[in-house]
Amino acid sequence: MRIVIVGGVAGGMSAATRLRRLDESAEIIVIEQGDYVSFANCGLPYYVGGVISQRESLLLQTPESLRARFDLDVRTGNEAVTIDREAQTVSIRDVRTGVVSDERYDHLILATGAAPRETFASRGIPATGPTVATLRTIDDVDRITAALADAPATAHAVVVGGGFIGLEATENLIERGLAITLIQHGPHPLSPLDPEMASVVVDELVARGVDLRTHTSVRELDAEGVHLDDGSTLAADIVIDARGVRPAASIAAKAGLTIGATGGIAVDGLQRTSDPSIFAVGDAVEKIDALSAEPTLVTMAGLANRHGRTAADAIAWQAGILDARPADAERAVGTAIVGVFGLAVAMTGWSEQRLRATGGPHRVIHAHPADHATYYPGAERLTMKLIVDPDTDLILGAQVIGRQGADKRIDVIATAMQAGLTASQLSRLELAYAPQFGSAKDPINMLGYIADNAKTGLTDSIQWHELDSAVQAGAVVVDVRTAAENALGAIPGSINVSLDDLRARLDDLPAGELIVHCQVGQRGHTAVRLLRQHGRAARNLDGGYLTWHSGTRMGVPARMKEYA
Amino acid sequence: MRIVIVGGVAGGMSAATRLRRLDESAEIIVIEQGDYVSFANCGLPYYVGGVISQRESLLLQTPESLRARFDLDVRTGNEAVTIDREAQTVSIRDVRTGVVSDERYDHLILATGAAPRETFASRGIPATGPTVATLRTIDDVDRITAALADAPATAHAVVVGGGFIGLEATENLIERGLAITLIQHGPHPLSPLDPEMASVVVDELVARGVDLRTHTSVRELDAEGVHLDDGSTLAADIVIDARGVRPAASIAAKAGLTIGATGGIAVDGLQRTSDPSIFAVGDAVEKIDALSAEPTLVTMAGLANRHGRTAADAIAWQAGILDARPADAERAVGTAIVGVFGLAVAMTGWSEQRLRATGGPHRVIHAHPADHATYYPGAERLTMKLIVDPDTDLILGAQVIGRQGADKRIDVIATAMQAGLTASQLSRLELAYAPQFGSAKDPINMLGYIADNAKTGLTDSIQWHELDSAVQAGAVVVDVRTAAENALGAIPGSINVSLDDLRARLDDLPAGELIVHCQVGQRGHTAVRLLRQHGRAARNLDGGYLTWHSGTRMGVPARMKEYA
Repeated sequence: MRIVIVGGVAGGMSAATRLRRLDESAEIIVIEQGDYVSFANCGLPYYVGGVISQRESLLLQTPESLRARFDLDVRTGNEAVTIDREAQTVSIRDVRTGVVSDERYDHLILATGAAPRETFASRGIPATGPTVATLRTIDDVDRITAALADAPATAHAVVVGGGFIGLEATENLIERGLAITLIQHGPHPLSPLDPEMASVVVDELVARGVDLRTHTSVRELDAEGVHLDDGSTLAADIVIDARGVRPAASIAAKAGLTIGATGGIAVDGLQRTSDPSIFAVGDAVEKIDALSAEPTLVTMAGLANRHGRTAADAIAWQAGILDARPADAERAVGTAIVGVFGLAVAMTGWSEQRLRATGGPHRVIHAHPADHATYYPGAERLTMKLIVDPDTDLILGAQVIGRQGADKRIDVIATAMQAGLTASQLSRLELAYAPQFGSAKDPINMLGYIADNAKTGLTDSIQWHELDSAVQAGAVVVDVRTAAENALGAIPGSINVSLDDLRARLDDLPAGELIVHCQVGQRGHTAVRLLRQHGRAARNLDGGYLTWHSGTRMGVPARMKEYA
Repeated sequence: MRIVIVGGVAGGMSAATRLRRLDESAEIIVIEQGDYVSFANCGLPYYVGGVISQRESLLLQTPESLRARFDLDVRTGNEAVTIDREAQTVSIRDVRTGVVSDERYDHLILATGAAPRETFASRGIPATGPTVATLRTIDDVDRITAALADAPATAHAVVVGGGFIGLEATENLIERGLAITLIQHGPHPLSPLDPEMASVVVDELVARGVDLRTHTSVRELDAEGVHLDDGSTLAADIVIDARGVRPAASIAAKAGLTIGATGGIAVDGLQRTSDPSIFAVGDAVEKIDALSAEPTLVTMAGLANRHGRTAADAIAWQAGILDARPADAERAVGTAIVGVFGLAVAMTGWSEQRLRATGGPHRVIHAHPADHATYYPGAERLTMKLIVDPDTDLILGAQVIGRQGADKRIDVIATAMQAGLTASQLSRLELAYAPQFGSAKDPINMLGYIADNAKTGLTDSIQWHELDSAVQAGAVVVDVRTAAENALGAIPGSINVSLDDLRARLDDLPAGELIVHCQVGQRGHTAVRLLRQHGRAARNLDGGYLTWHSGTRMGVPARMKEYA
C-alpha cells in the first residue's frame, strides 16, 4: 500500500505516524512545500516575542527523525502541483530545482492547511516600505526577527487583524518593546466574542499601551507607511498581516474534488473527499458544526490531529487492517483560547450574535465569580457567559475570560456540551474543590444554578442591551448594591436601595416594573425573589452592573438590535 | 411554615438561604453549636500557615448579616439536644447558660456535619503534654495559633493522619517553620490514591523535609510526647489530630431516624430521612455512590451545599411553592483535590485498589504528559491514571497529580464521567488549546487515544505490579528508550534497544514474549505496534519506567496481589 500525504504539519503528520503504527509495510510519502515538517506553528508568535528563546524548540521533528522512528519518506521543499485522479498520481515540483515528478498513490491524504485570505503582496508592496509579513511559518518568523533586529529602538509595528494571531503578535511585539497599532475591521478584536465580553479584552489592550483602531482597514501600503480607510496614515517599521485565512484547497479544486460553500474541501465522516481514494484533513477541509449540523470552517490543531488519525484509521479499515469501521468525526464545537497579556480568553460553541443573526432561540447568562474561594489569597474575577437553548436547556455556547482558571472552565463547559448535558446539570457536576483551586460552589456550578433558576421560572432576567427599551416602557432601575458601590458608578436614572435594606423599604419603591441590579447579578437575584414574593413585578439585570457597563460602552451591535 | 435547621455551615446555610429565596414568609431558625456560622472551614489550615493572614477572612457571614439579608434567625452557641418527632419539636441547649428550650418545627433539617472518629482527649491527655488539637473549627485554629505563638523556634509538630486535612496541616506548619513528623496508619498518605500515584506525594513530602512514618499509629500521648505503635517516642510541642471523621448522627440516631450501615443518616433523593418532616444534608448523611449505587460517605462541601439546596427545594415543593418535584440528588463520584506544597493531587471515582478489592473488572491507563506544549516555557509533567470498565469503556475513576493543570484535568474527567462519556470519547473532546494552556492533543485526549487503542485491541499493556510474574513466566523486558535514558535507571534484567534502532535490530531480540517499555508509555506503544506487525508477541508496560519505578518502590499492596 502506497500512501502519499500532502502537508507535513498537524493533520498530515498525525495521519502518517498513525498509519505507520497500523501498517508496518505501507509506503508512506509526506510531501511538504516548506523546509520544515511538524513545526510548532502555535508557538511562532512566542518565538517572535522571545518567550520561546530557542528556534530549535519550534522544530518538533525532522525528516531524519521521522525516517528513523516511523520509516516515513518525508520530502520537504516539495510542492504538490496537480492530481491525476484517473492514474492515481500526484505531480510534485521540487521547489529548489523546479523539477516535476509524479508519485503514484493508492491513497492520497490532502493536509494542505490554510492560506492568508488576501495578502498585501498581491497588490505590490514597494521595496522601500515597511517589512510586511504574515505569521504562519518558520520562514515568516525568520523574516520578522531579522527585521526586528534591524529596527530602531523606537520601532512601530502595525498589526492588521485582531483575531487570535493578531492578538498574539500584538502581545509579543509589545514584549519586544515595539509600539503597536492594532487595526480591526469590525467593532472589536476577537469577532467571535460578543461585545460585552470583548470589552474586557479591549480594556487589557489599552492598559498595555496598544493603539487600537476599530471600524477601519488598510487601504494601501507604501514607503510612507500604512494608509487606513479612515484617512489616517501610520508610519510603520513592520506590518504583521493577520487578516485571517481560507482553506488552501486549490489543488483539490483543480482535481475536481467537491469544494463546499465554505471554500473548504468537502469530506465525509471518515475524511473521504468526493474521490474515495483521496482523503483530506485539517484547515483545508470543512467540519460539521455541532449546533447547526451544517458545514463550517474551524481551523484548530486539535481537530487536524484527530482527523488525521481518523483518515489513517479509515485507510487501514478499507485495507482490512482494522476490523471495525472508525467512528465518524465528531461534530465541531469550535473550542478556542487565546492569551492576551495576562488574560485567557476562551470560547466554545456559538456566540449570542451568531444565534441572533440566525434567529435561533437562546437564553443568555452572565456571571462574574472568582476563580477560587475569595478567602484564599490571589482570587481573580472570571467573566463568564453561557448561552442556553430555552426549549431544551442544552448548552449552545460559552465565553470565559480571566487571569486564571478560564481555560479550566471552558474545557468543562465544552465537555458538558459535547456530552449533551443541560445547562442546569452544570450545577450537579462534582468538581474538585480546595480553596486555591475553586469554590465549594464552583463557577461552573453557579452557571448551572442560574440556568436552573431561569428554566424553572424563579428568575426572570433582562440583558444589558434590552435595558433601554424596558426603561422606555416605564420600568425603574433599582440598584441593590451598597451606597458605596453605587457611588463608584451607577446606571443613569437608577435608584439605590441596598439589598439589606430592601425589606424595610418596600414602600419607598416606585410603582411599575422594577429592573433590579447589583454588581454581578447574585444579590440582584435575591432581590428579585424578595420583590416578587411581595407582589412586585421585577426582573434581574443579568450579569449586573459589570456586564451592563462592559456592553453599553461597546455599543449595541446591529445584529443584537435587529433581533430585539 | 416554620423550619428549624441544625448546623449553620455549608449544607445548613445553603438550605436556609435558598428557602428564604423561595419563601419570604417562612420562619427560618438556624441552630449552631459553635460561635460561628458559615465559616470557611476549608481555609482553616491556611490560616494556621499564615497564607490567609486575616482571621476575619474565614468568617463569611454573621448572624447579623444573615438577618439583614435573608431574615434568618441564627442562634450560635446553641446545641440541638433531642428531637421529639411526635410533637415536632427540637430541644435546644444554650451552651453558655445551659438553659434548654424547645422549638417547634414544620420541617427540620439536620446539617450536623462530621466529628472526629476518635479523639485523644477521650483517653485523657495529661495537662503537661503537648497541645493536642483537631483542625475543624475556628476554636481549633485559635488554640493552634496560640500554641504556636508560645512554641519555641525549634518547635516540633506531630500530625496524626495523612488524609486531606493532615497534609494541609503538614504543609502549613512547615510554612510556619516547624519540624513535622507525619504519622500514617497505612502504607502511604492519601489512602484513596493507588500506591504508584501516592509515590509522587511521598517524594514531595520527603523533599520538603517531612519526617514521614508509615505503617504505624499513636499508642499513647503523655507529657513525654507521642508514643507510636512501633515503639518509638516523638517529642512534640503540638499534635494535630487529623485521623478522619465520622458522620455526626447521634441526635438523628437518638430520635430513631434510620442510620445506614456507613453510620450516616439515611436519606432519599430529596434528602428526606425516615421521618418525612425531617431532612438531612452534608457530612452527616449517606450519599449514593455513582459506581456501585450503594450508600457511601463523601464529606465534600460541594455536595453539602447542593443537597442543602435540594432539601430547601423539596420543602418548597411539598408546600406548593415550587410546582415541579426537584430532581433527585445526583449520585456521587467523590471528586476531590488537595494541595501538597507545590503539587495538586486530584481524584474522582474509584481507585484501582478499591476495584480490585471488590473484584470489579477494570482496565488501567497511566500517562505522564506535560500540562502544556513542551515547546512553550514552564511545562510541567502530569501524573495521570484513568481506570476504565473494559466491558463498557465507561470511566470508573481517575487520579491526576501535577504542579499545574491537574485540577483542570480532573474536572474534565469528572464531567465526562458524570455525563456517561466513554474513555475513548475523551479523545474527541475539543479542549481549549494555545501553547501556554494545553496541547493540540491535550492530556485528556491522550488518555482517550490510549483507551481507544486498548479497546480496539491495538495495544496490549501490562501493569507495573504484573511485571514480575510475566518475567517469571519467561518474558523479556526491552527498554526502547535511548542509551542515555537507560543509564539513568533501568528495570533489572531488561535489555536496551532504542526505538529508533528497533527495526534494524529485530533479529537481535531474544525469543519469547517481549515486555516493552519507554519512559512514559508512548514510545513503548509505537514499539509494540512495530513488533507485533513483525510477528512478535509484545506488550507495553503501561506508564513506562516512571510508573513502574513509582509503584515498585512503594511495594505491591495486598489488595493488588490478591487479585493477580
